Amino acid sequence: MKIDTKDFCVREGSKVNLKKWPTTSKPVFSSKEEYKRLLEKHVAQLSDLQELHAASAKTALLLIFQGMDAAGKDGAIRHVMSGVNPQGCEVSSFKQPSAAELQHDFMWRSTQRLPERGRIGIFNRSYYEEVLAVRVHPELLANEGLSDEARDKNFWKKRYRSIVDAEEHLHRNGTRIVKIFLHLSEEEQRKRFLARIDAPEKNWKFSISDIHERKFWKQYQEAFGECLQETSTEHSPWYAVPADDKENARLIISQIVLNALRGMKMAYPKTTDERRAELLEIRKHLV
Amino acid sequence: MKIDTKDFCVREGSKVNLKKWPTTSKPVFSSKEEYKRLLEKHVAQLSDLQELHAASAKTALLLIFQGMDAAGKDGAIRHVMSGVNPQGCEVSSFKQPSAAELQHDFMWRSTQRLPERGRIGIFNRSYYEEVLAVRVHPELLANEGLSDEARDKNFWKKRYRSIVDAEEHLHRNGTRIVKIFLHLSEEEQRKRFLARIDAPEKNWKFSISDIHERKFWKQYQEAFGECLQETSTEHSPWYAVPADDKENARLIISQIVLNALRGMKMAYPKTTDERRAELLEIRKHLV
Repeated sequence: MKIDTKDFCVREGSKVNLKKWPTTSKPVFSSKEEYKRLLEKHVAQLSDLQELHAASAKTALLLIFQGMDAAGKDGAIRHVMSGVNPQGCEVSSFKQPSAAELQHDFMWRSTQRLPERGRIGIFNRSYYEEVLAVRVHPELLANEGLSDEARDKNFWKKRYRSIVDAEEHLHRNGTRIVKIFLHLSEEEQRKRFLARIDAPEKNWKFSISDIHERKFWKQYQEAFGECLQETSTEHSPWYAVPADDKENARLIISQIVLNALRGMKMAYPKTTDERRAELLEIRKHLV
Repeated sequence: MKIDTKDFCVREGSKVNLKKWPTTSKPVFSSKEEYKRLLEKHVAQLSDLQELHAASAKTALLLIFQGMDAAGKDGAIRHVMSGVNPQGCEVSSFKQPSAAELQHDFMWRSTQRLPERGRIGIFNRSYYEEVLAVRVHPELLANEGLSDEARDKNFWKKRYRSIVDAEEHLHRNGTRIVKIFLHLSEEEQRKRFLARIDAPEKNWKFSISDIHERKFWKQYQEAFGECLQETSTEHSPWYAVPADDKENARLIISQIVLNALRGMKMAYPKTTDERRAELLEIRKHLV
């Protein structure tokens, strides 16, 4: 089945009201078997493209995953990216910033984790938390050492501007950025949380504070909506992927990543005449 | 077939003469199909163990790969570790140090790439180059800003001491270290180099300087031999894996990594009474 990822892309400049974006969509597979077969195919294609990407080494790919707790970020990374050579792929999870990191601007710590050319970098959460979690809990800004002048009425607009400018800079210098928002419903999160309680291999990473955040669901949705609206650009687009069906979301995501790699027009470095002469010279030393 | 990895382990305190260590060994598989089946089985087991390792998060695993050019380091990492969740596994390739890195002690740059607890770190080359390539080309030491007193007749012994002490420190603090030397014959390297010349997806990363290093084969073998002898310890052992047969080497390596993970006696965090009460409390908020 053809997966049309355009449906999920947030067009630059469009208004975003997340209530109108679905958290479910028509499944792109018709059976568990077809899901497995499609995912395996995508993973194998990703693995091949990543080899070529590493060899051509002209561009880096940065994939950013955001979404509420239990939206499926970890699972998507695991199922879509296991199978890719770990030598060409680096995952960074951004948790609560350290005291030392808070002494820098809000994007500083993530720049150190940006992928080199030829590599795929995956951010599991990112600097976007600074306009999401921090926006919902502005009291966190007190730790960020900002001047009074910085915190004016355009504060969040200016954060969006910093992000858009930084991403455009990266694009100009060869990093392709694809941003994935796993769009989950409040009810589906409730079901997943309940399932976690009963699974001994999952409940160890679950705490009462995760539940606490559910009280801010509406504020989070508003923050996500405005963030997608203000920071989805032609070069670094956001995809709002319906996440209530995990399998479906993974296939959509793997298709988005495949499209991003295919859009790079990569090639193995050309063998020039000069290079051919050098290879002949090398051969002479070996026979 | 049972793969006995003990045969390849360099025992602490034993004398090492690499000429007596084979670069081939009895194949652990009898057909291409059996190889594929075994490797797939190992990779699936590794993937499961890594999940448990991430959850238990008591220990980190550091795998160090060393070997001559074309010994199969990249291929082993790709074939053995693709399939493992990249979120739990980070590969670091150490190339020529930068001017800034040379302003530090010889182990400094790699400490920043050590795996966190719950993760697998893979070093594709490592600080061991400082007693291998640098030992074969001591003129490189001129860039390392060492005092005259530091460069006495025990210089290399002291480097081994630094390494052994640092690894013992890591072991005491929860990092398990397994070191793999891919032991390749000079003739097999020649064949692989020749094959590379003719493969357009491989020859781009091949230069005349790679050939140049072959002149130092004997010196490298001596440096490797002494290095294995001086730095293989009970807690952080070296394995000299016969590398002339790539497939065989990969199966031996995957078995070594499996054994290392199994030796960790990991478990999902226990559900205590207190924790059970918290989970019940969480449930109340969700129903």
